[in-house]
Amino acid sequence: MSTGNTPGGAERHLTHIDESGAARMVDVSEKEATARTARATGRVRVSPRVVELLRGEGMPKGDALSVARIAGIMGAKRTPELIPLCHPIAISGVKVDLVVTDTGVDITATVRTADRTGVEMEALTAVSVAALTVVDMVKAVDKAAVITDIQVEEKTGGKSGDYRRGGS
Amino acid sequence: MSTGNTPGGAERHLTHIDESGAARMVDVSEKEATARTARATGRVRVSPRVVELLRGEGMPKGDALSVARIAGIMGAKRTPELIPLCHPIAISGVKVDLVVTDTGVDITATVRTADRTGVEMEALTAVSVAALTVVDMVKAVDKAAVITDIQVEEKTGGKSGDYRRGGS
Amino acid sequence: MSTGNTPGGAERHLTHIDESGAARMVDVSEKEATARTARATGRVRVSPRVVELLRGEGMPKGDALSVARIAGIMGAKRTPELIPLCHPIAISGVKVDLVVTDTGVDITATVRTADRTGVEMEALTAVSVAALTVVDMVKAVDKAAVITDIQVEEKTGGKSGDYRRGGS
Amino acid sequence: MSTGNTPGGAERHLTHIDESGAARMVDVSEKEATARTARATGRVRVSPRVVELLRGEGMPKGDALSVARIAGIMGAKRTPELIPLCHPIAISGVKVDLVVTDTGVDITATVRTADRTGVEMEALTAVSVAALTVVDMVKAVDKAAVITDIQVEEKTGGKSGDYRRGGS
Amino acid sequence: MSTGNTPGGAERHLTHIDESGAARMVDVSEKEATARTARATGRVRVSPRVVELLRGEGMPKGDALSVARIAGIMGAKRTPELIPLCHPIAISGVKVDLVVTDTGVDITATVRTADRTGVEMEALTAVSVAALTVVDMVKAVDKAAVITDIQVEEKTGGKSGDYRRGGS
Amino acid sequence: MSTGNTPGGAERHLTHIDESGAARMVDVSEKEATARTARATGRVRVSPRVVELLRGEGMPKGDALSVARIAGIMGAKRTPELIPLCHPIAISGVKVDLVVTDTGVDITATVRTADRTGVEMEALTAVSVAALTVVDMVKAVDKAAVITDIQVEEKTGGKSGDYRRGGS
Repeated sequence: MSTGNTPGGAERHLTHIDESGAARMVDVSEKEATARTARATGRVRVSPRVVELLRGEGMPKGDALSVARIAGIMGAKRTPELIPLCHPIAISGVKVDLVVTDTGVDITATVRTADRTGVEMEALTAVSVAALTVVDMVKAVDKAAVITDIQVEEKTGGKSGDYRRGGS
Repeated sequence: MSTGNTPGGAERHLTHIDESGAARMVDVSEKEATARTARATGRVRVSPRVVELLRGEGMPKGDALSVARIAGIMGAKRTPELIPLCHPIAISGVKVDLVVTDTGVDITATVRTADRTGVEMEALTAVSVAALTVVDMVKAVDKAAVITDIQVEEKTGGKSGDYRRGGS
Repeated sequence: MSTGNTPGGAERHLTHIDESGAARMVDVSEKEATARTARATGRVRVSPRVVELLRGEGMPKGDALSVARIAGIMGAKRTPELIPLCHPIAISGVKVDLVVTDTGVDITATVRTADRTGVEMEALTAVSVAALTVVDMVKAVDKAAVITDIQVEEKTGGKSGDYRRGGS
Repeated sequence: MSTGNTPGGAERHLTHIDESGAARMVDVSEKEATARTARATGRVRVSPRVVELLRGEGMPKGDALSVARIAGIMGAKRTPELIPLCHPIAISGVKVDLVVTDTGVDITATVRTADRTGVEMEALTAVSVAALTVVDMVKAVDKAAVITDIQVEEKTGGKSGDYRRGGS
Repeated sequence: MSTGNTPGGAERHLTHIDESGAARMVDVSEKEATARTARATGRVRVSPRVVELLRGEGMPKGDALSVARIAGIMGAKRTPELIPLCHPIAISGVKVDLVVTDTGVDITATVRTADRTGVEMEALTAVSVAALTVVDMVKAVDKAAVITDIQVEEKTGGKSGDYRRGGS
Repeated sequence: MSTGNTPGGAERHLTHIDESGAARMVDVSEKEATARTARATGRVRVSPRVVELLRGEGMPKGDALSVARIAGIMGAKRTPELIPLCHPIAISGVKVDLVVTDTGVDITATVRTADRTGVEMEALTAVSVAALTVVDMVKAVDKAAVITDIQVEEKTGGKSGDYRRGGS
């Protein structure tokens, strides 16, 4: 696998596709089980009326954000069921934060493991499922909500090294 | 439920939260089982190198987009498992299209049902899971891929009427 | 199926086991799809210290009960995956209430459908999963928590008629 | 995590809720993967007619208890899907025993692992799912069955040490 | 869809692939929800020693066949999760029979529904999962067990009409 | 467990059934986590018309085989959910190959792990789910397709040693 490496740890090919074009779950049995983390973020843009409701103006906001937070945590655990070529791994911790801003909801998920693959996909899945749950929660009030800017901010651990968005 | 309606079918409150703030799965047993559709879109922004690979330059692109398409279809079926307050419904058709553009992958999902609730969440989930799968597929080459602009474009059927993004 | 009926709608045999003793999922295709409800209750007995914590004394109780409520709702949807001979049905509404008492947490789940089988098992599963989640939440503080008195209180709809616990 | 410890290994706070009240999956990556066991018990109280049927009087009891036993074993594997903040762990063994008594069915589940968290929740879930399956099996004959006294009897392994119900 | 029909109800094309070659879940919302059944069979060939064990010679056969029967029933319910383009449908009854012969285990599954698609895939999946479970049960004794001859024997209902293997 | 061993590593009893006949998930916590592989094969026999279609004669074959390949990979991950007494294990790689022959589709699955149990069941499940997906894909054209000859070809690793079909 190393021959395809460019400086900085990036592969030059789609590793999930073999030379004949067939999808496969890449063998990671040679990789070391080490501490790894990933942090991903995303946003849901909603109408001003929804921002009011999520801030609890005019009615108890109650479980609204809790539902999305819990859905995100549970979603992280389902990553290998959803994404065909993801390895099943032992997630050792998940945190999902939701912050209501003037234009929507900012979501951050942090996932930890001590396993053979990184947890970027788990963090992105946690953000995505939390975002979908926010949209579900508000869709009767605002059909035009948009999920946007879901991306990895940072990862640590593993052979390809640490990564920080916007850094080197 | 009708008293909270504003013109155009929008509710004024978060219907998934009761007056005490507790989350609930809203009772839809009184709703009619009718033909309903929803179409959602989204995009994954990737590096130029990934665009080349997804277009099959330098290697067979093979299953790359197929994996995402199938993951999206299967993801639509898992919507009620992922989103806590979604009703389990009988999806009667799903189509997921992926188009490689100069800056990434455009994703469209169309979902149909003949059941008691709309399928907007199913369409959004199909797009989200397809997008996550694209990111998984390319992440060894491009760690900075971004999922963006996931939104409902159109829905038909149901009591709240048809909806078209940007229309009335 | 009617020949085995006793007055009051009870069968005299285990309907899920055929005459040779083999388990089967009973055919319900002849049953009518009608409105049905079920309400089940249960309790988790916990230590006085846990009661304080769940009431928010000394720390924010925050999501503690929300997590159990949401787990109960999601659990109801998983009933046919967990209970081998349960039919997959279209749940049309779920409500899970948790009340902190002086000795623990009282749980009530109400489930509705418009389908071919009753939803008693869905209501009991919602209560059970909510109760397990309460135990998980408090187990670091109180290893001796007990789940108890999980039972159907009431059901309506279906050919066997309405049932109310302690009634006829 | 140690500062909150009381003598005997109990925490003083709900560890699954952070200082702001938000639910999280606690990070266990620092915990050691060691041999751990848990044993949980519970009971289903049923009518005398059901006791007869489960003992095979008047018809073959056949698969009745097998279905519950197998459901319990499979339920243990689903614990992290059902209980939002449970870690996915590698269960290495499960045993579920059901004994028909004069008043119902006594259930015992023993779960083993060699992983980073205890398996109390897995054992309690196995008992709960087995109990729900018994209720499903008998509900056509006895609508009033009650699931009761689900509790951890014993656990071994892990930093918080061994626990035996009624002991110290 | 009718133009591609040959006499006898067979299509001339792969209906799950559209004209561009993309997989899709075919829209069945126009199909009628009617009573449908399917029966599928299959076999597991095992060694003489395993035949003895499954017949209970020298040890109680106990749950051996029950486990496979229950796995088959539960497997039928999971068909739309396993097979990407299968529609989620409301199964209304499942029966799985296992018969020990001199050379192995014969498996028959019968599935019923009152929904928009046939249940051939559900019946085939029930047989497959039951067969896999038999192999799992005996593999410590006989590593060479073979699953074979899994096929639809009969179907009724639906627009394409009844089908009987070897018939017209 | 060793006392029941015959030469060559075969057990003389059904290890998944205890002395009373009750099913159990065997405790593997004492087994070593080592590199293990398994390769299984199977076939789907289809009509000449289907062979033409799968070879892309007269229409783009497109995703037809991709869907089955991906379903097989995802199926391998679901093995412990489908087969009641299978341990949940960390699969570290899966490869599913499909080859169209003159009489059908030959399927091979190779699964790797670094865990406490072998992966024969995962490889067999991958083949079975891929085969079921092929049948689903072609069933509108050929109702008589047959899944056959699903078997383990080879395994390596683990205490019982390597195995090669037809070898010693």
